[in-house]
Amino acid sequence: MNMAEIDSAIITEAIRAVRPDDAAEPGEAFARAVWSGVAEPGDSVAGLAIAALGAEGALAALHEGWTAERLAKLLSDSSGEEVAAATAAQALERWTPRAKGDFALEHLRVAAHRGVRLRVPSDRVWPEGVDDLGLHGPIALWTLGSEDVLRTLPRSIALVGARAATGYGEHIAMESAAGLVDRGFTIVSGAAYGIDGMAHRAALASGGGTIAFLAGGVDRFYPSGHDSLLRRIEASGMVASELPCGSSPTRWRFLQRNRLIAAASRATVVIEAGRRSGSLNTAGHAAAIGRPLGAVPGPVTSAASAGCHRLIREYDATCVTSADEMAELVIGPSDDRLAMPSSAPYDAERVRVLDALSNRSRSIDDIARLSGLSVATVQSMLGLLELEGIASVGESGWRRG
Amino acid sequence: MNMAEIDSAIITEAIRAVRPDDAAEPGEAFARAVWSGVAEPGDSVAGLAIAALGAEGALAALHEGWTAERLAKLLSDSSGEEVAAATAAQALERWTPRAKGDFALEHLRVAAHRGVRLRVPSDRVWPEGVDDLGLHGPIALWTLGSEDVLRTLPRSIALVGARAATGYGEHIAMESAAGLVDRGFTIVSGAAYGIDGMAHRAALASGGGTIAFLAGGVDRFYPSGHDSLLRRIEASGMVASELPCGSSPTRWRFLQRNRLIAAASRATVVIEAGRRSGSLNTAGHAAAIGRPLGAVPGPVTSAASAGCHRLIREYDATCVTSADEMAELVIGPSDDRLAMPSSAPYDAERVRVLDALSNRSRSIDDIARLSGLSVATVQSMLGLLELEGIASVGESGWRRG
Repeated sequence: MNMAEIDSAIITEAIRAVRPDDAAEPGEAFARAVWSGVAEPGDSVAGLAIAALGAEGALAALHEGWTAERLAKLLSDSSGEEVAAATAAQALERWTPRAKGDFALEHLRVAAHRGVRLRVPSDRVWPEGVDDLGLHGPIALWTLGSEDVLRTLPRSIALVGARAATGYGEHIAMESAAGLVDRGFTIVSGAAYGIDGMAHRAALASGGGTIAFLAGGVDRFYPSGHDSLLRRIEASGMVASELPCGSSPTRWRFLQRNRLIAAASRATVVIEAGRRSGSLNTAGHAAAIGRPLGAVPGPVTSAASAGCHRLIREYDATCVTSADEMAELVIGPSDDRLAMPSSAPYDAERVRVLDALSNRSRSIDDIARLSGLSVATVQSMLGLLELEGIASVGESGWRRG
Repeated sequence: MNMAEIDSAIITEAIRAVRPDDAAEPGEAFARAVWSGVAEPGDSVAGLAIAALGAEGALAALHEGWTAERLAKLLSDSSGEEVAAATAAQALERWTPRAKGDFALEHLRVAAHRGVRLRVPSDRVWPEGVDDLGLHGPIALWTLGSEDVLRTLPRSIALVGARAATGYGEHIAMESAAGLVDRGFTIVSGAAYGIDGMAHRAALASGGGTIAFLAGGVDRFYPSGHDSLLRRIEASGMVASELPCGSSPTRWRFLQRNRLIAAASRATVVIEAGRRSGSLNTAGHAAAIGRPLGAVPGPVTSAASAGCHRLIREYDATCVTSADEMAELVIGPSDDRLAMPSSAPYDAERVRVLDALSNRSRSIDDIARLSGLSVATVQSMLGLLELEGIASVGESGWRRG
């Protein structure tokens, strides 16, 4: 059944159930719901078509039997770059099998039943960061939980890492999430085992905001072992996905989900990652859209830190060792940084005079000879040290204390 | 007694005892021996005077009663920068108490007795790297051991770190030194407890070259607990100092000794260091003269790695996690670096087709719908996967394996 064949009252009712607070443009919202099940995450051809015609217009064109030539012309005209007819033809082939039938109404029915909300980019509350993904951005988001946490994303950090985390990594994930919550940050992650789960857990335990982005529909909590954790995230924060209810997580969708984590948050920190961990993919997305990227070092003897060291060595990730340093990725450095231990002799004379002082009294000449400094320099330095109570003078000369 | 008052035959004999292989210019070598006990390490005014007049000429001028004005004029003329009379006056005040008496003859007597050699910059074998210190460079070096190891310095790395090393740090120091020796590197360090000692020990155990720079005279092994280690370094490598025999190590001299470690080697690696460790001073010297600087990460929960993380975070030290990566600081990267885990869909279609395959046979249309790819793309990808033995086709469609 094409969208045009569905009674608009049915569309309005289905949309109202998942968008109770926003009755505007139900047709456009419905079309985005449809597209979220038609185009795989990150499909930039769909992004371009929707940008050019609106979701509803693009869907109508699809139902009316777009030819590859017409689609290619539209994409070329709107993007200003030549899009090949073959690209358009492949896109149509991708979309058509999924665009038929009443898939979207079924997605919406399940969503409404489960209390899932549909969110679109024009919404008052929308994670603006994902717009930086441009044409690769999400067409819509399906969410469970409170929208309040979306408002906190301008002060958020993604904490991600290996599923096969070590005790060290889990400890750092907990400390980091708790410390960042104390500093007013919301924690974004992917609800996976290991680092992700620890980060969410510590955020919840600290009373902080947290968002989990899933690779499949939010009606199917994944991994199943994190069912109760995800229920708690839903209760205090938010569980979100760009895929409609019923969608399975696939490897492709995990990789694309990672771009949402990187883009929705203000900075990404990889806490533990093997040399080929999926967390490096999240890090790559963060770097690609210019988000600050941090990595936590660990023992070089631990394979679980090898990916972090690689990010620091080869990809300019910032070495972060504490919640403060993670916060600095977003809010800039605090002013308590210490100066480089200088190789310049700024306090050289002080050190040399102190070296020459002992508990036995010495003459200024002796101190000058021992320190290799001039008598005048020794005299003025001894005066300072006396003021500080570090040196004292008696009849037989100068001594420490 | 002034140098001019010492019989040249006595000078020649004293110098021959510490320079048995090089009879050239005994007067200049003697004057450098004198200066090494007159000027504290890193005294750039002495460096400038010696550069202008030669060590012998500068010493003669000192003995003849340089006025501050004449010295200031000499320094200004030779450096091209205005040197204040006060600076010259302070230098003369520093030098004069030490330049009198027969200190140098006594230093040479002790050196000869102990088998110490005197080395000067014009020597055939001289650690050229220290010349990068310019006017702050050593006037002479007093050494124990074989000069062969000096020839290996073009392929050397300084391994330094905290005295208060952890088991982790000592393990890394051992692995690193052994691994670098295997790769043909000489290990330079400071013979201190902790990291330094481990680095020397592992270098010796691996049959590699190693040099220890001391902050006091080489006749007084410091720390005393490393007496037998230093004897072994002397036997297989070299123990060196810019201070004459009998000189005590002072805090100032430790800081200046660090510049020799940084300059004599081709790169410096800090293995473990607290936030204010003296190793950071060595690192600062290395950076100041443009030597590659590496730091080994460790657990962020370990205070003994905090200085290393600080070097990586704030001072652009390279994060190094293995002997190979340390060697890269000197010889450049090897070509086995892996590409960044890409966020681009380079193997996207492959992943999506694989996701859609299972042990149950599926039609190409089904796979296209599940993967969100066009039929044509699915067909070509299935062809590739079949060639690789990952997918197979039967009467009822395609399946994994």
